[in-house]
Amino acid sequence: MQRTHIADIIKEEGKTVTLAGWVHARRDHGKLVFIDLRDRSGIVQVVFGPDVAGASELRLEYVIKVKGEVKKRPPSMVNDKIPTGAFEIGATELEILNRSGEMPIPVDTDGFDINEERRLQYRYLDLRRERLKNNIIARHKVIKFIRDFLAERGFIEIETPNLSKSTPEGARDYLVPSRIQKGNFYALPQSPQQYKQLLMVAGLEKYFQIARCFRDEDTRGDRQPEFTQLDFEMSFVAREDVMALNEELLIAIVKTLYPQKKIQEIPFPRISYAEAMQKYGTDRPDMRKDKNDPDLLAFCWVIDFPFFEKVKADAAHSEASAQEWTFTHNPFSAPKPEFMADLLAKKNIPDILTTQYDVAMNGLEVGGGSIRNHQPEALEAVFEIMGFKKERIYANFGHMLEALSFGAPPHGGIAWGLDRLVSLLQNEPNIREVIAFPKTGDGRDPMMGSPAEVEEKQLKELGIEIKKKS
Amino acid sequence: MQRTHIADIIKEEGKTVTLAGWVHARRDHGKLVFIDLRDRSGIVQVVFGPDVAGASELRLEYVIKVKGEVKKRPPSMVNDKIPTGAFEIGATELEILNRSGEMPIPVDTDGFDINEERRLQYRYLDLRRERLKNNIIARHKVIKFIRDFLAERGFIEIETPNLSKSTPEGARDYLVPSRIQKGNFYALPQSPQQYKQLLMVAGLEKYFQIARCFRDEDTRGDRQPEFTQLDFEMSFVAREDVMALNEELLIAIVKTLYPQKKIQEIPFPRISYAEAMQKYGTDRPDMRKDKNDPDLLAFCWVIDFPFFEKVKADAAHSEASAQEWTFTHNPFSAPKPEFMADLLAKKNIPDILTTQYDVAMNGLEVGGGSIRNHQPEALEAVFEIMGFKKERIYANFGHMLEALSFGAPPHGGIAWGLDRLVSLLQNEPNIREVIAFPKTGDGRDPMMGSPAEVEEKQLKELGIEIKKKS
Repeated sequence: MQRTHIADIIKEEGKTVTLAGWVHARRDHGKLVFIDLRDRSGIVQVVFGPDVAGASELRLEYVIKVKGEVKKRPPSMVNDKIPTGAFEIGATELEILNRSGEMPIPVDTDGFDINEERRLQYRYLDLRRERLKNNIIARHKVIKFIRDFLAERGFIEIETPNLSKSTPEGARDYLVPSRIQKGNFYALPQSPQQYKQLLMVAGLEKYFQIARCFRDEDTRGDRQPEFTQLDFEMSFVAREDVMALNEELLIAIVKTLYPQKKIQEIPFPRISYAEAMQKYGTDRPDMRKDKNDPDLLAFCWVIDFPFFEKVKADAAHSEASAQEWTFTHNPFSAPKPEFMADLLAKKNIPDILTTQYDVAMNGLEVGGGSIRNHQPEALEAVFEIMGFKKERIYANFGHMLEALSFGAPPHGGIAWGLDRLVSLLQNEPNIREVIAFPKTGDGRDPMMGSPAEVEEKQLKELGIEIKKKS
Repeated sequence: MQRTHIADIIKEEGKTVTLAGWVHARRDHGKLVFIDLRDRSGIVQVVFGPDVAGASELRLEYVIKVKGEVKKRPPSMVNDKIPTGAFEIGATELEILNRSGEMPIPVDTDGFDINEERRLQYRYLDLRRERLKNNIIARHKVIKFIRDFLAERGFIEIETPNLSKSTPEGARDYLVPSRIQKGNFYALPQSPQQYKQLLMVAGLEKYFQIARCFRDEDTRGDRQPEFTQLDFEMSFVAREDVMALNEELLIAIVKTLYPQKKIQEIPFPRISYAEAMQKYGTDRPDMRKDKNDPDLLAFCWVIDFPFFEKVKADAAHSEASAQEWTFTHNPFSAPKPEFMADLLAKKNIPDILTTQYDVAMNGLEVGGGSIRNHQPEALEAVFEIMGFKKERIYANFGHMLEALSFGAPPHGGIAWGLDRLVSLLQNEPNIREVIAFPKTGDGRDPMMGSPAEVEEKQLKELGIEIKKKS
């Protein structure tokens, strides 16, 4: 279908155009029918005289095709609020492409006052609102910018598996029963951590991925069962190299895509974990000097975290009872070079600092990463400090230790929470506003009705059954 | 670490450079040690004299950092096979960054003669071989090209959920038990079909995604449990629009990234399903005029498929016994316009042709798509022809029918099998050669050891148990 995007009519004064879109508003004045026609690019007023059949049938959100002349509106009638406001379309032809029932939720508001369950049930309508459309487009632009930036610098995007293996560290895994290997399970990855390190062992040197991650966590405010990370990893680098590239990328995103925003301090200030806790009482300090300025971005790096901490009594680790120490951030991290001897000797454990670097913005964590242990004895020492027995280490991480024994290069990387970053840049209160099809806080999708019961036959094929409630 | 990529030394004659990489080959001549040093960018010979400590310790796949002078080799010693072959490095400093055990598989061959189970077990070494590295880089380039091409034309990349809902049509779903809603399951998506249509209902007009898809199928040659599609969808289009854009993109990929390849016929020839079956006995005809030319690409479109076919006796559909007709390609497709009346009247069923268009290359299917039914009564008629009862239609597809009732625009799209396309362009015999971490034919990952048993506690939390073998 040849058509003009509504935003482009401002270049077509006096010409006849064909537009297609949705009836966003209508006013029926008897002889004349006025509608606001909406497509992805914008909104324009269309005027139907009595000679155009069908105009009085139009209702909100009908999908129509309109042919007409682009006319300049008289100066007193110009609508300054929209880019096409100086023009209107004098319709000569109308075709109704699809009708619409009455909207269960309005789509011409910002939507904040609508019950969120209902917004999610009708997400395909909710996304019609200007605010959400803009968020989805902004997300696309941020991610495209990241991809272009990294590809330009020699990074290769590589897809890693979503059907992976459960490891009983970190958060809870989502499991996927295997039909062919009954009684066995895949796990959805909590992050591509191991795969990206294996890609460094493979010699690919610069990897990135916009990666889907899965964590089966209890409802906690701004979390989602699946979320998106920018994940990247580099070989032959030290901590400064990764931090510098990150900082450059974050600054470039803001300057290019959000020129109205101000970064409070460049280079980003750095603060040690100890100082952050002492001065701010948190490891993601909000350093903004003016908390009322919605366009102020105060990035900072937090470094020099302790590598280990005492296991908490309520920890979810499966051998928690036997375990005294756990990692604070990532078991695959290297200690700062001056602590390597202590790590290998397993002494002065609480004093060992990790190479971990976290980047925070306005009090929220945007990303975190580290230089990794590229020598197997260092990684093994981490697990030994955590009290893991040899057989457990080899059962869960044997493939990583073995991989490091075949010429692993020094490497490090970072992962960003992209949903969080985009929501902050868009001044949105939560990540659900920048995800096309998010789930509720308790992991449901009211639109599709998932999760849902499945047919008995499916479970039988998988060799599993639902436990009777006792 | 400041270092020069090996491929760049040809611009550095007479200068001192620092290189980092892997020992690809070594020849110890006593006083002199020669190694071939490999990084992602290339290979170069490094010569160590007796004054450089550590050179005699070097073994294959050690990771080293070398400082030395870029020297021109005498003409008789130039190695024409590699781009750096006119140069060598006279080493002055050596640092061993990591050692390597003996390689369990060679990495300096094409790898075709190595047992594939073993290749997959050591995939992080397998990927070191030139052929696989090139495949992974080529895949990145093809996908980057697609993204740039579509973004340039106003398409927005939108991520759709991987925790979705099981629908008992098509292939078998992978299920994910829900811990919070015990007894209920998510399903991993077989494709983003419904989500992308809902994005059209949302008015986003031009969507694409490099999407992960999951199908739990029995071992069949060149299949993988998870695979990657280029998925896209457009609003306000007819069949010709989608086909034209696809053809333009496929031609652009070949001409830009594979200039040595020849496309046999442009525009791509079109053949009806009936003619393809009659002339070639297949619906993905291999139209190459010279089957021995590895650089000849014969694309063709296959169109005018029947919409419905009789259900086969062994069909996996859950109500198969009650079901006479099923769709040949996609239940969401629209019929060709001249058959819409028959579809709505549910008559002349075997004669109804679908808008489906498949694109094949050299006898293999690259992609397929269709214009969709954007009016709910047409979609409902499809399910009625398939013999589904009202309650089943509404239970499984009620959200789609409802969505179409709120002003869905005319829309259509396509999905490509990207693994297949890249493997064909790279002249690889199967898709595993262009996937970083593929699984075996029976869905195992010998490197990670997945699928695997999980802890009893994990199953308990999910409220499921493994069925005792009877």
